[in-house]
Amino acid sequence: GVCVQSLESAFSWSDLKPNADGLVPVIVQDYQTKQVLMLAYMNEEAFHQTLMTGRMTYFSRSRQQLWLKGETSGHYQFVRQISLDCDNDTLLAKVQQVGAACHTGNKSCFYRDVVAQQSSYRSTETVLEDVMNVIQDR
Amino acid sequence: GVCVQSLESAFSWSDLKPNADGLVPVIVQDYQTKQVLMLAYMNEEAFHQTLMTGRMTYFSRSRQQLWLKGETSGHYQFVRQISLDCDNDTLLAKVQQVGAACHTGNKSCFYRDVVAQQSSYRSTETVLEDVMNVIQDR
Repeated sequence: GVCVQSLESAFSWSDLKPNADGLVPVIVQDYQTKQVLMLAYMNEEAFHQTLMTGRMTYFSRSRQQLWLKGETSGHYQFVRQISLDCDNDTLLAKVQQVGAACHTGNKSCFYRDVVAQQSSYRSTETVLEDVMNVIQDR
Repeated sequence: GVCVQSLESAFSWSDLKPNADGLVPVIVQDYQTKQVLMLAYMNEEAFHQTLMTGRMTYFSRSRQQLWLKGETSGHYQFVRQISLDCDNDTLLAKVQQVGAACHTGNKSCFYRDVVAQQSSYRSTETVLEDVMNVIQDR
């Protein structure tokens, strides 16, 4: 079962350096698969709500309001770990994602490639196929 | 060996939606371990340089100039894959990181925990120790 509880924080909002809009970007990563799911933003209230509820809460820049992720879709993100970067202006959250993170239905918002070095993305099946071909050639 | 080459892109800069500063945030992830290393920003020139050289190039907000990651430290980041998110305003780069990504010497800039759910971060050793204790108790 998923445990929802208030979290004790080693840093407070005043330790963070928000951008000109008063927001801090949050990288969201699946805590099990390590897939990067999305980038969102927190204001002070979203930060406190997230720590108080254990559910990722953001500030929606398009709607200009607090946004409990999953409130309408049911696709909640339960906090597993939140880390702070070296210059205090970005957070990394590892979460337990219910369903898909992206509103398109994709697990991750990053489902379109700009560039990919093919050589490093050969599947196990492809490699086995190549090995098989080499064996059959001999 | 590391292959440096110009990359063909499925999207152009004009497809992206930069923020008010003309920048696009880039999440940088180790392509092998999937560890999130840092968040940086690109302007149009950084985007083109990255695609042209296969090395991650950013726009430094503090120095307000182009920043070839690794130029002084030798800690280059070679592009393996770059993806675009659903609303075209964030990039995810999977890279081959030479040395440490962080200027502090840490592999990742996210080396400090704000919160961590202890239950989900028990090491194999801890679990084995617990099992051993249960066995010895019987």
